[in-house]
Amino acid sequence: MCQSNVYLQTENGEEKLVMEDVSLITPLDGGETELVGLFGDRLTVKARIKEMDLLKHRIVMQATEAS
Amino acid sequence: MCQSNVYLQTENGEEKLVMEDVSLITPLDGGETELVGLFGDRLTVKARIKEMDLLKHRIVMQATEAS
Repeated sequence: MCQSNVYLQTENGEEKLVMEDVSLITPLDGGETELVGLFGDRLTVKARIKEMDLLKHRIVMQATEAS
Repeated sequence: MCQSNVYLQTENGEEKLVMEDVSLITPLDGGETELVGLFGDRLTVKARIKEMDLLKHRIVMQATEAS
């Protein structure tokens, strides 16, 4: 099972879990990213990928300014 | 083992394997992305993430223009 948990890094450096068991990640235009979970649940976040550690099942995202 | 293979999509839509068993992916400034393999091998590509399918262990990247 290789899904990852997605965290959003806030301005003060804290990390907040936004979605668990994400299997598909697609960066969209305008600084958004679409996340799709194991059961087809979808979430679009106004954030870009900052770093991904696939062995730790961890994806850190950073909020983007609205474009 | 949750590393992924990274493919670069060419202009005519073909996909070329650029690195196997990637464990860390970090988008850099200027449209580049750093890939780190299971044994610490590093590769920086002039490309951005197009889509990632963690269940299929597949990351597709698209070349960016030099900035």
